[in-house]
Amino acid sequence: MNKKVAVILSGCGVYDGAEIHESVITLLRLDQRGAEVQCFAPNVQQLHVVDHYSGDEMDETRNVLVEAARIARGKIKDVRELHVDDFDALIMPGGFGVAKNLSDFVLSGANCTVQADVLNATQAFVKAGKPVGLMCIAPALAARIFGRGVVCTIGNDHDTAAALTQMGAIHHECEVSEIIEDHPNKLVTTPAYMLAQSISEAASGINKLVDRVLELTHV
Amino acid sequence: MNKKVAVILSGCGVYDGAEIHESVITLLRLDQRGAEVQCFAPNVQQLHVVDHYSGDEMDETRNVLVEAARIARGKIKDVRELHVDDFDALIMPGGFGVAKNLSDFVLSGANCTVQADVLNATQAFVKAGKPVGLMCIAPALAARIFGRGVVCTIGNDHDTAAALTQMGAIHHECEVSEIIEDHPNKLVTTPAYMLAQSISEAASGINKLVDRVLELTHV
Repeated sequence: MNKKVAVILSGCGVYDGAEIHESVITLLRLDQRGAEVQCFAPNVQQLHVVDHYSGDEMDETRNVLVEAARIARGKIKDVRELHVDDFDALIMPGGFGVAKNLSDFVLSGANCTVQADVLNATQAFVKAGKPVGLMCIAPALAARIFGRGVVCTIGNDHDTAAALTQMGAIHHECEVSEIIEDHPNKLVTTPAYMLAQSISEAASGINKLVDRVLELTHV
Repeated sequence: MNKKVAVILSGCGVYDGAEIHESVITLLRLDQRGAEVQCFAPNVQQLHVVDHYSGDEMDETRNVLVEAARIARGKIKDVRELHVDDFDALIMPGGFGVAKNLSDFVLSGANCTVQADVLNATQAFVKAGKPVGLMCIAPALAARIFGRGVVCTIGNDHDTAAALTQMGAIHHECEVSEIIEDHPNKLVTTPAYMLAQSISEAASGINKLVDRVLELTHV
């Protein structure tokens, strides 16, 4: 039977939403491996909107669910509709949206909180003992989702790693092409664009993460 | 020496811009094959903005270059800056943006015109005898870019194929996993999401298109 995987997106665009390459590579690998995928996002306003051409903040507002729908070609649901019983695993791509829309990590660092609907949805997978994959900056939420002692990676950025450690996570440095696994927690993480210098470098670690998350659904 | 490929995007999102999966799969395959990529888009307003969650038109305006920059992670240039001498090949992913922003095909069908900067940039590759790849709905512009008698595919949609034929193109039906090549014109086309039922189906044809376009740079 095909594995069913929920993917939580944080908008559409690296600087204010979900990292598009990471999201699409995740969807492609899951589909190539025969998994059934459903995308989700929180129905909240983005922290802000960034002009990805100039890098400047734009004077407008956008909704995370509405923008994430661009990556999902419209096939997306409010994360409040994510029922853990319907899925075998959960994956969250990165992008600043994780630190801006799914949490306030970009503002509050180690004192951050995770958006309530996203926290409920992700913790349900932990309680059910189902595997979770977090990539790029998304492991910044690991200590809040899994609790202290969770093992994860965001690559090798010292400031970010220090914030994770302060929150109670155990940070392991990791190459872009590799994954870090916290076996008791069934958590798999990879640095993706925290380190990737090219889209194929990002894909190398993401593909390993997807494959391992799918394997863990059999454990 | 690495081949240099220009990719022209038409926004960010299937219903009003560039199809995101097609765009990312194109960038991934090009990078995996060792090509150097530069993205471009016209610096014009989108025809309109579609809420990809509800499907409704939104009461706002967006710029094609600014939105396409989301797919390119900011590394994108105005298509007016595309100098054919700097590149070995050109690829254009699909999405409604091709028919709404790069041309008015969605409004005018067989009477459509191609946006002036895009037409100049693409025809320069034809004049230089350099290979071009068009996917999904992008072959709707083939007759305007290459002239009458150009051979291409948009899959098997009869109405769209009829419009292409009326414009002077010779339409060949094609499976999602295959490509159609017009050898004298060095034009490669594939249906992608005109037919694809899944992202991996789209990737099957897109990967063949990218590989063949790169091969044609050696011919």
